[in-house]
Amino acid sequence: MNTHSNTVELIRKKRGGGVLTRMEIESLIGGYVTGDVPDYQMSAFLMAVFFNGMDTGETAVFTDVMLHSGSIIDLSSIPGRKVDKHSTGGVGDKVSLILAPMVAACGVAVPMISGRGLGHTGGTLDKLESIPGFRTGLTLDEYRDVIRETGLVLSGQTAEIAPADRRMYALRDVTATVESIPLIAGSIMSKKLAEGIDALVLDVKTGDGAFMQSYDDSVSLATALVSIGNSCGKETVAFITGMDQPLGMMIGNWLEVLESAECLKGKNVPDLMELTYVLGGAMVHLGGKARTLAEGITECRSAIWSGRAYEKFLQVVERQGGDASFIRDPGRYPASKFSLEVRATSPGYITGFATRRIGVLAVELGAGRQRVEDPVDPKAGIVLSKKIGARVGKDDLLAVIKTDREEVAGRAVREFSSCVTIGDSPLPAKSCVRATVDKDGVHAWTTPRTY
Amino acid sequence: MNTHSNTVELIRKKRGGGVLTRMEIESLIGGYVTGDVPDYQMSAFLMAVFFNGMDTGETAVFTDVMLHSGSIIDLSSIPGRKVDKHSTGGVGDKVSLILAPMVAACGVAVPMISGRGLGHTGGTLDKLESIPGFRTGLTLDEYRDVIRETGLVLSGQTAEIAPADRRMYALRDVTATVESIPLIAGSIMSKKLAEGIDALVLDVKTGDGAFMQSYDDSVSLATALVSIGNSCGKETVAFITGMDQPLGMMIGNWLEVLESAECLKGKNVPDLMELTYVLGGAMVHLGGKARTLAEGITECRSAIWSGRAYEKFLQVVERQGGDASFIRDPGRYPASKFSLEVRATSPGYITGFATRRIGVLAVELGAGRQRVEDPVDPKAGIVLSKKIGARVGKDDLLAVIKTDREEVAGRAVREFSSCVTIGDSPLPAKSCVRATVDKDGVHAWTTPRTY
Repeated sequence: MNTHSNTVELIRKKRGGGVLTRMEIESLIGGYVTGDVPDYQMSAFLMAVFFNGMDTGETAVFTDVMLHSGSIIDLSSIPGRKVDKHSTGGVGDKVSLILAPMVAACGVAVPMISGRGLGHTGGTLDKLESIPGFRTGLTLDEYRDVIRETGLVLSGQTAEIAPADRRMYALRDVTATVESIPLIAGSIMSKKLAEGIDALVLDVKTGDGAFMQSYDDSVSLATALVSIGNSCGKETVAFITGMDQPLGMMIGNWLEVLESAECLKGKNVPDLMELTYVLGGAMVHLGGKARTLAEGITECRSAIWSGRAYEKFLQVVERQGGDASFIRDPGRYPASKFSLEVRATSPGYITGFATRRIGVLAVELGAGRQRVEDPVDPKAGIVLSKKIGARVGKDDLLAVIKTDREEVAGRAVREFSSCVTIGDSPLPAKSCVRATVDKDGVHAWTTPRTY
Repeated sequence: MNTHSNTVELIRKKRGGGVLTRMEIESLIGGYVTGDVPDYQMSAFLMAVFFNGMDTGETAVFTDVMLHSGSIIDLSSIPGRKVDKHSTGGVGDKVSLILAPMVAACGVAVPMISGRGLGHTGGTLDKLESIPGFRTGLTLDEYRDVIRETGLVLSGQTAEIAPADRRMYALRDVTATVESIPLIAGSIMSKKLAEGIDALVLDVKTGDGAFMQSYDDSVSLATALVSIGNSCGKETVAFITGMDQPLGMMIGNWLEVLESAECLKGKNVPDLMELTYVLGGAMVHLGGKARTLAEGITECRSAIWSGRAYEKFLQVVERQGGDASFIRDPGRYPASKFSLEVRATSPGYITGFATRRIGVLAVELGAGRQRVEDPVDPKAGIVLSKKIGARVGKDDLLAVIKTDREEVAGRAVREFSSCVTIGDSPLPAKSCVRATVDKDGVHAWTTPRTY
């Protein structure tokens, strides 16, 4: 095999627990991008990182080198601080759709590059593309034009952004090297830092429906992400938030657009809007339009109440080619072939959801994809009627399942029923925000649930 | 990337410390041979094995599956038990050249497939090919014909033998996954078990010049090798032997053929012949031509003294196309351009050699290769005058260095000098055999040095 021996020494060094220098990481990533370092050497390196990790400084350099493998968007011509939010992904997580126009309506520019759903989690791009005509594949020029005109932009990753990460992510997926905190952190941050942002708010999910199921792993990931962001000169804070039940009431691409539009018009879906206000408030604060998080939250509530956030949403949808008439009049949207009611078989209180399995069910209904190349059915999904803490009587409606797939429809009701736990007494109400992580460390979340 | 997800699950299982089943190993190795499992998945798997190992049963199955990835030579038409020896490699280790004809002269057939030198160690094929005309690239038919006619055969690995190992070995070399005991054991044994042998004697080197430098690692490797051999129904014993000084007095391909020929004619080079008799005696014993190891050693000494071993050597050299006239009259062989004397700068006793560095120096002189594709200079090498324990006076000759490479010649004497330690008092004589490993476990070596 025709491979320069230097790479073998770098793999060996990481294999032995060594810390790579900037020059060594540049040689490795640079060689990978040019093709001098083949996939089989990179995958051996990635597996060595899985076992031996990377320290904080090494992870920051790794991210920086991946970031500089492609273009970094320059938004310095746009006045004010640009702030984005990134979530590690969950079930029913449509926060971005509400938050981006809400924060933009507060006067903070939001350049947002999102991904597609994979595995049991949904993706913002798929949700946006359920709006007929909506274009997420913007060029860099269009990207800059949209944010200049509307104060926000909702785009997919372009080929110019962090190409090293794109290739490496595909490789990790097929070599069982995804679950490594420094690799996850480097992948997320190399893309986010390329967006042209000044500050970043992170939503790191924890619990059954999250990618990182254990609280400790979520805190470790959040700490790594915050450390990288701040070391790159971008003020970064993270919120550890619960993903032990789907967020909001709707799961599925078009359903989540609908729920977002309702919330933008003032509907209060408690867990969803609590989280949206906290994350949005932090963005407004980091964007310099509020002196504190609490002030930021107040600004956000005002943007919703006044209707400015909803108007901003319609504006960006139309600017990116979307047909907003479907949002104004959802009855025009096609309906799924099957609409199946799930009812409680016994009375009591809802005490839990098997959230990951509900995410997997939504994928099977057509709302997500098992492989990158799979198509998505925008109509498919689940509408919940009850969440944790709710009282249910026998035969009460728990959810409505929507799908075109007959073979899944036949077992979907039974499958969903088995994902709901009904107990004898209600669980105490709990904030879905568990902790915050900033450059000073991890802080317990003490703000009361209602503002 | 177009890869079946099953392989990802196998990598993940090994990554998590799981034990793969026979079916899983067959899927992995079988897929690798057909190309369904690409190099980048195999290298991630190999790195996971580096960290999490394989248990005894798993290693045996791994070896068996690699063995059956290619042809297994059938030597059942050759009467008697066929026995081979394998060494993990060292500096100046020309044992095979003496031992194979010696054991064949005792009536035990020796089907020997050898490798080339790589790194700081020499290889039997390079030594044999220093004899003008000698052919090591035999077909399977030629292989069987030579052993039928002469009682031994000295061949290189054919494309039919363990193709999975050949591809995997090249991959391990460039992905820093060589140093894993189950992978080393599987690689060695899958080739050896394909030779058509009934029993196997292993020489596992330990010490500075060995691949496994620590004694404990050498014992672990020997234990793994012996376990695999016996579990495959081939009686296998291993000897742990010292590689803290070069074996014998000569290093370099043609020089080692010369030293072997002298030993076959009766010259006693103490450490070299001690080891050759022990390993050869074990082969004669396992081959059924002696009741004990000691009796086997007596048979081997008789084969040397009587001249039968030397005649057998000349016979196989000529049968495989070699010009034996160079062995009978070494003066005809071309001489190196440079012949440099290394002399002691102070009097005392030799107490140690930096054996690995001497092996590296021999490679630089032209005797070995840094990369697989490098050519080898058969004439180049080092002739030692003194070994550990020898008394030296100031200006006494320590070694003669032979090379055609002017740029190396200029620094070779200084480099060799720095590899020799001269102390004030002699070290006690020590057997180069440290321990034996058989199916009952590890045994200290207690036989006296002289027989």
